[in-house]
Amino acid sequence: MAKPVITLSDVAAAAGVSLSTASKALNGTDRISAATRQHVRTTADQLGFRHNALARSFARGRSQTIGVLTHRASNPFTRVVLATAATELGAKEQAILLYDARIDDHDVTESILQLRARRIDGVIVIGTGTSFPTPSLTSRFDVPVIYAFTYTENPDDVTITSDDDAIGRIAIQHLLSKGRRKIAHITAEPHDNAAVKRAASAKEMLAEAGLAWAAPVRFGRWREDWGAEAAAAVLAESPDVDAIFCGSDAIARGAERAVRAAGRDVPGDVSLIGVDNWEQLMHDQRTSRHLTTVDVGLEEIGRQVAAQLLEPDPKPGIQYVAPQIVTAETT
Amino acid sequence: MAKPVITLSDVAAAAGVSLSTASKALNGTDRISAATRQHVRTTADQLGFRHNALARSFARGRSQTIGVLTHRASNPFTRVVLATAATELGAKEQAILLYDARIDDHDVTESILQLRARRIDGVIVIGTGTSFPTPSLTSRFDVPVIYAFTYTENPDDVTITSDDDAIGRIAIQHLLSKGRRKIAHITAEPHDNAAVKRAASAKEMLAEAGLAWAAPVRFGRWREDWGAEAAAAVLAESPDVDAIFCGSDAIARGAERAVRAAGRDVPGDVSLIGVDNWEQLMHDQRTSRHLTTVDVGLEEIGRQVAAQLLEPDPKPGIQYVAPQIVTAETT
Repeated sequence: MAKPVITLSDVAAAAGVSLSTASKALNGTDRISAATRQHVRTTADQLGFRHNALARSFARGRSQTIGVLTHRASNPFTRVVLATAATELGAKEQAILLYDARIDDHDVTESILQLRARRIDGVIVIGTGTSFPTPSLTSRFDVPVIYAFTYTENPDDVTITSDDDAIGRIAIQHLLSKGRRKIAHITAEPHDNAAVKRAASAKEMLAEAGLAWAAPVRFGRWREDWGAEAAAAVLAESPDVDAIFCGSDAIARGAERAVRAAGRDVPGDVSLIGVDNWEQLMHDQRTSRHLTTVDVGLEEIGRQVAAQLLEPDPKPGIQYVAPQIVTAETT
Repeated sequence: MAKPVITLSDVAAAAGVSLSTASKALNGTDRISAATRQHVRTTADQLGFRHNALARSFARGRSQTIGVLTHRASNPFTRVVLATAATELGAKEQAILLYDARIDDHDVTESILQLRARRIDGVIVIGTGTSFPTPSLTSRFDVPVIYAFTYTENPDDVTITSDDDAIGRIAIQHLLSKGRRKIAHITAEPHDNAAVKRAASAKEMLAEAGLAWAAPVRFGRWREDWGAEAAAAVLAESPDVDAIFCGSDAIARGAERAVRAAGRDVPGDVSLIGVDNWEQLMHDQRTSRHLTTVDVGLEEIGRQVAAQLLEPDPKPGIQYVAPQIVTAETT
């Protein structure tokens, strides 16, 4: 038979003190005498009150701990998903045990053994974006596994990630809504899944408006200096360009410097939109908005993985979080 | 008598299989037969192998879990300390249980009771900077408590945080090393502890070089638009200013736009240095450096709190992490 749960009321009754005094004694305030505090604590220990939370979960075969596997926890996007998920899980009394950089290498088998030994309640795998897939680990655990801000090649995996198709579409919709018709695109490597999908959906959106790119798409890197170099080339070859959809905020920051250096006004002559909502991620509520951007929904991904992980029937497949336009000074 | 620790070798021996087969069976790879996998798992369960980690810590009276209390986990600086500490603790098989926004309000007593019931091994309190103190909670726990990126008013608390005195000094040293002599300062509120300390130590450093501020210090807000407004005013009143020490990177970004808009070259006419290493925090290894800045050491704070929390005799008082100059294009 399971032991009954020992409550604070049980401790107070056994110690012969009020509920309020028992609470003060156990939470360490100084507003009661040392003798009373010691008496209540001894009583609580004898009853097993302090041991209760862990003992109860142990009896249930659960640790109230979620294993989290990251490719690279120092990645700034990973940090946002991680901190948001940890906050939501903490509100549900779930701890996280983070294993960084143990997904791809030989450590993964050891990680899995250790997480199983810990009797974790579930696993969250956090990637660094949709640029490349994460190996599926679902079959190697007997607890729920959910993938965040990445994707796997197993269609049955439960995955919550950003929506590159929608990102490309809403960026172009926004520029069209500002009256722009001569739109160029600067983005990252031509073999990067996120870059390719955003470019393709943006092109479709343009086609629906009867338009095409005003200059060939520039594929390069997710970097500020690439944004500057490519924007200078775009303006030299296609001087009538009136907007540039930049694949990331870093690219957009570089593009802005090049546009201004070419003597063009932003947004008067050339509108710029990035992707990532870098200013918000970095500056929290302190920011003053400068760059128009697309928020890909990292915090929402963190909230959703925390909410869905321990649900009884998580939905297999990829759930996309809707991106949001954040309008500022550059459009 | 404590039960002996059950190892993978014990499971392999009891099941009559090799260590490699036992490992494969328990970590879920498909490279062995279902019958063998089931046999090994049943053997492991009978021996209590899978229950081992939690049972062992329970017997020790420990949960291998660290309680983390944050003012606001969505703060971008908090996220860096949190993710770094969680990574380091994970490498030591320590989970974190995050309670966000439960330090200052009425929830703190409930948080403390719940963390005690969970039998956490220690507590990390993560602040949002050195602008204001955190209430001391040390006496309310019977496990070690350490404060990160904040400070308390209890001199016995173990605290690891950024060094505003050193930040002000090295920023000025850097500008002096670049030959600048007419230096101005734009920073945040005059009642903000971090802003005040950085301004005071910068002034001392100037005085040691026989100099004074080239314009009155502008106190305002930690914001990009304040940086632009204040830099425009500084240049209008003191046209011979050749460098601006900006209290944060956001202020520096705004100042740079105003300096360029005034027709001055950066860094040719006016050098700019910020504080925070925003580009690194945001862009990880992808960044191309633009803004010269002071890295205040958030990752080092995260590493140090994780390393010191469970040491037998943590050193009471404030330990300051050394800031680092990150030189880029604006100086």
